Amino acid sequence: MESIPSLSDIKRAHQRISKIILETPVMTSNSIDEMTGCTVFFKCENFQKVGAFKMRGAANMILGFRPEERVNGFATHSSGNHAQAVALAAKLSGTKAYVVMPENSAEVKIKATKEYGAEVILCEANEKSRIKTCNEIIAKTGAIFVPPFDDYRVIAGQATVAKEFIEAEESLEVIMTPVGGGGLAAGTALAAKYLDPNIEVILGEPEKADDTYKSMKAGKIMPVKNPDTIADGLKVTVGERNFEIIQKEVKEVITVSEAEIINAMRIIWERMKIIVEPSCAVPFAALLKRKDEFAGKKVGIILTGGNVDLGNLPF
Amino acid sequence: MESIPSLSDIKRAHQRISKIILETPVMTSNSIDEMTGCTVFFKCENFQKVGAFKMRGAANMILGFRPEERVNGFATHSSGNHAQAVALAAKLSGTKAYVVMPENSAEVKIKATKEYGAEVILCEANEKSRIKTCNEIIAKTGAIFVPPFDDYRVIAGQATVAKEFIEAEESLEVIMTPVGGGGLAAGTALAAKYLDPNIEVILGEPEKADDTYKSMKAGKIMPVKNPDTIADGLKVTVGERNFEIIQKEVKEVITVSEAEIINAMRIIWERMKIIVEPSCAVPFAALLKRKDEFAGKKVGIILTGGNVDLGNLPF
Repeated sequence: MESIPSLSDIKRAHQRISKIILETPVMTSNSIDEMTGCTVFFKCENFQKVGAFKMRGAANMILGFRPEERVNGFATHSSGNHAQAVALAAKLSGTKAYVVMPENSAEVKIKATKEYGAEVILCEANEKSRIKTCNEIIAKTGAIFVPPFDDYRVIAGQATVAKEFIEAEESLEVIMTPVGGGGLAAGTALAAKYLDPNIEVILGEPEKADDTYKSMKAGKIMPVKNPDTIADGLKVTVGERNFEIIQKEVKEVITVSEAEIINAMRIIWERMKIIVEPSCAVPFAALLKRKDEFAGKKVGIILTGGNVDLGNLPF
Repeated sequence: MESIPSLSDIKRAHQRISKIILETPVMTSNSIDEMTGCTVFFKCENFQKVGAFKMRGAANMILGFRPEERVNGFATHSSGNHAQAVALAAKLSGTKAYVVMPENSAEVKIKATKEYGAEVILCEANEKSRIKTCNEIIAKTGAIFVPPFDDYRVIAGQATVAKEFIEAEESLEVIMTPVGGGGLAAGTALAAKYLDPNIEVILGEPEKADDTYKSMKAGKIMPVKNPDTIADGLKVTVGERNFEIIQKEVKEVITVSEAEIINAMRIIWERMKIIVEPSCAVPFAALLKRKDEFAGKKVGIILTGGNVDLGNLPF
């Protein structure tokens, strides 16, 4: 796919992946509605396979190849949910996955990636080593690279979250997602534009990893040096294809502090009785911070994932 | 209600409370099915109002009175989910609640009970003081006492969990619940008997608070002295009316260790991404312990509640 996904690309993606992903539920909470003054709908991708929306983009890319093209497997490098997503999507499509992970990755994540059937290759904990190791694996095996976000097929896959959300909940006025690399953010912006252009798409981002916020101001990608936030899924710099879409289709990026992220995460755990990871609480933190602007509106928030190390919680 | 609830009592209870309780979802997990070798359905009362099934029994009792009988409010003593349930059910039925709580109750529980609109009266942290203080309040205000479990109206209310569960999931072969005072356990046993007598009802109980297990063996109620378990909702001794039903209708009580409870709780958090309290993990711990006996069966587990102090987790 060489151009920005169209509505039919997103529809085709949804059809393609529907046999290996879950249609996740939408949840609500009276106490959160009282607290925010708006009507909030949470699209629970923390209940998605592998515990995160990343399953959709990986599945769309992998299933987009014909079976005979898949025989040498797929490869990626990731320390996070993308690793598990590629592992499981490859397995469910009948082929294998090679996942390069930094040697300092959490033991639980390496174990989970192996359990989903991937061959895990450890590398040094830096971007250069990750890319080099991954390229070596690809040269040796003929595996196909699955990019984590900067790819139109991945963006089309992630766009299916908002498509399901808009189809399930009529007349949403706002949809909020976090922004890291921008796969979900860009996909959501496209789905909203095509399916209900009245919906405003607003992104949440940690102050300590605010590259997209700065990039929107500057009109070009502005990476943040050594981003350090509890929302570890959002440390990466927004991708080129992602930023091109976000810049055009997203209304605003709202940044939040570490304390605001932890507070928002705790409220979701306590009030909704569901487990969300810190990255996932960022848009809700943004809503809490600026709730007066959203008063009375129907706000949809995409809860992106629930993979948390229970031995290392911030409260 | 002076006799064991009939099927029509349970149906009437369900109809009565349906406007102020939620019909909770049933969830499943592929990885838990693989782990146990059976097909497990979880009825998620952790998503119920006040975060626990206790809302149903309190609502059935309170709404069972005519509006003019409710004017002096309702009273109870509780350090747990029953306190919040009585508070909210009274508020939603248009009257007030007086809740006697031991002075060493968790601050968060006192706060929540007040937020649900109750007047909280603190007492010394012993059974005698609780009962005395509650009786004084009742004498002064004319409020009606809402017992936590040893009451047929409360049992009929708790029975609506299993009624919904059986109606939502056909051909369950086993239903498991924890047993503390026995409101839910007795209600579940009755609902299963009336609606599908092929269902075996099995209870989970902590080894360190195994009064129902011992009582079943002895044929009479055998309280445990100073029960001490992380499953704090299950420390109470089974009630008389509850035991009468359990003894006749329940197949077996399976006891589990503290480590087994914590392990089961962690698996539910990690695999299902939902928050359940320790008491709630007890039947799942029982299933894990004896999984070979349940292999291939359709097992329903009632997840009773999700009220946990996040600042004091066992992992």
